[in-house]
Amino acid sequence: MTRAYAATGPGEPLHLVDIELAPLGADDVEVRVEHCGICHSDLSMLENDWGYTRYPLVPGHEIVGTVVARGAHVTALRVGQRVGVGWYSGSCMQCRDCLGGDQHLCADARSTIIGRHGGFAESVRVHWAWASPLPDAIDASTAGPLFCGGITVFNPLVVAKVCPTQRVGVIGIGGLGHLAVQFAAAWGCEVVAFTSSLDKTEELKNLGAHRVVDSRDPRALSHMERSLDLIISTVNVPLSWDHYLAALRPNGRLHFVGAVLEPVPVAAFALIGGQKAISGSPLGSPATVMDMLEFAARHGIAPVVERFPMSRVNDALARLASGEARYRIVLDADF
Amino acid sequence: MTRAYAATGPGEPLHLVDIELAPLGADDVEVRVEHCGICHSDLSMLENDWGYTRYPLVPGHEIVGTVVARGAHVTALRVGQRVGVGWYSGSCMQCRDCLGGDQHLCADARSTIIGRHGGFAESVRVHWAWASPLPDAIDASTAGPLFCGGITVFNPLVVAKVCPTQRVGVIGIGGLGHLAVQFAAAWGCEVVAFTSSLDKTEELKNLGAHRVVDSRDPRALSHMERSLDLIISTVNVPLSWDHYLAALRPNGRLHFVGAVLEPVPVAAFALIGGQKAISGSPLGSPATVMDMLEFAARHGIAPVVERFPMSRVNDALARLASGEARYRIVLDADF
Repeated sequence: MTRAYAATGPGEPLHLVDIELAPLGADDVEVRVEHCGICHSDLSMLENDWGYTRYPLVPGHEIVGTVVARGAHVTALRVGQRVGVGWYSGSCMQCRDCLGGDQHLCADARSTIIGRHGGFAESVRVHWAWASPLPDAIDASTAGPLFCGGITVFNPLVVAKVCPTQRVGVIGIGGLGHLAVQFAAAWGCEVVAFTSSLDKTEELKNLGAHRVVDSRDPRALSHMERSLDLIISTVNVPLSWDHYLAALRPNGRLHFVGAVLEPVPVAAFALIGGQKAISGSPLGSPATVMDMLEFAARHGIAPVVERFPMSRVNDALARLASGEARYRIVLDADF
Repeated sequence: MTRAYAATGPGEPLHLVDIELAPLGADDVEVRVEHCGICHSDLSMLENDWGYTRYPLVPGHEIVGTVVARGAHVTALRVGQRVGVGWYSGSCMQCRDCLGGDQHLCADARSTIIGRHGGFAESVRVHWAWASPLPDAIDASTAGPLFCGGITVFNPLVVAKVCPTQRVGVIGIGGLGHLAVQFAAAWGCEVVAFTSSLDKTEELKNLGAHRVVDSRDPRALSHMERSLDLIISTVNVPLSWDHYLAALRPNGRLHFVGAVLEPVPVAAFALIGGQKAISGSPLGSPATVMDMLEFAARHGIAPVVERFPMSRVNDALARLASGEARYRIVLDADF
């Protein structure tokens, strides 16, 4: 038994409940939760926006905590070790994708909060490979968002094999985007932040953005033509994608990590002429998470967060939903 | 003065006329045309499908011929040398893209048949860098289509950094597709040909396809799920793109070289989950053309063509428009 904050239906507030954890598998570890970030997808899951939420739902997939138990086969982690857990809690570890190091692309990858209880809880149990050791140099109290928002925007720099001589644009400056700006700047790139909140300009420059551009102003966008090598879109609303494609240099790539539901109408001509691409990716593999943590530690990159005690989870969710949080909210376990 | 076959308006037959060539620039060569392939884009230009045809139009941009004159600055080619010329006849040679080896992505790249006379003529004049030396091992009489159709489907293998362990699909088996199948097979890949003409199956297997699949059969396509690393689409009609995206393995790429005019509706989710991409490219750089010619010579790859004397150009155009040509038509100059 463990205590957790659960919702019993769409739009319902979370309540403290006792839940039964799944049995500790031979390859699993149990992690005592210390902190847990709140991601927009927790809100989407609470509202059943994607149609596959099962209630009672315990959200939370930006977990930092300590290993308190391990299954019989686990040797890579020790009890007492501090780890982070993100959107994935397991994968088959046997298919070609898992064996090839792309465990996050496994057809059977398991989410931390689909059909199981997430991190708004005293404890979670996950496959050891998805509990990533947290380097000592990283502040545990703010690290949670690295495990979902962070890896989601770090992975595209790896997948796209970005060079420090390149220019990177980031659309949408929230939980994901403010980390993307930091990563791309530390990567050595010129960084342009696209946001509809120009009042963030000063802060964005402090985070490493070289320029801040109004994401909804066609004139500002048309001045960007043929200027960027990679644009990472973190938003889930339709924008003037033609302008963003035109803002790419030859060989450029518009990369989606925000799950905009409306189909993006792509003219083949818009890709052919400049040898361009549109792509997407989900989080990243455990090895890429390790690389991200080392990189973040070396460059002093950390999520900018607002913190709430977990007992005030409903206030925290309301704050996130308001769009006012800068830039991520982390819950501190206070059971 | 040179003789050439020109159309004076949309839908008009071509007539033999005398034309004035542009002055021979210091960086230009004059090429005496021996053979010239016919590309679908010649038909599109004749009909002014894209709205920028200028008449009289002399089509033809799959030229094989011999250098008969060179400008004062040209040292890379000699008079008497056999060369090939494709869609591009020049680029600025000074911008970052040109200096970087991506001359085909130069914002000022010049087409061979837009605002100038193409290869259905005794002679053409082009910038020396766009007249690629033809290796002796390549049959000049069938080589023309390599310079547009060939490079257009060879370039994606280079751009996508395809490995011989990967699986490549080719949609549409015409002038481009039958070369894509040969290139991908010689590249060492497993090759799947998607065509609506299943009567081509035997011939496609002889060209190197390991499987032939009905491009319009949703059931056949749904059996392909998660199986291909790269799909090159050479068609210019809308297909069930969702099925093709689903046919990609994780990290897979759907690559357009056929200019389908109807926008492709792309759901970001369809890209994110499997870390997939949609991309496009136009022909290739002069250096990639050189690599293609060496590769084709080493592997005995040649366009499968039907040949017409150039004086029968109107019959040849009608044959191409009928869709019956297998797989490309080459005109032999007979002035």
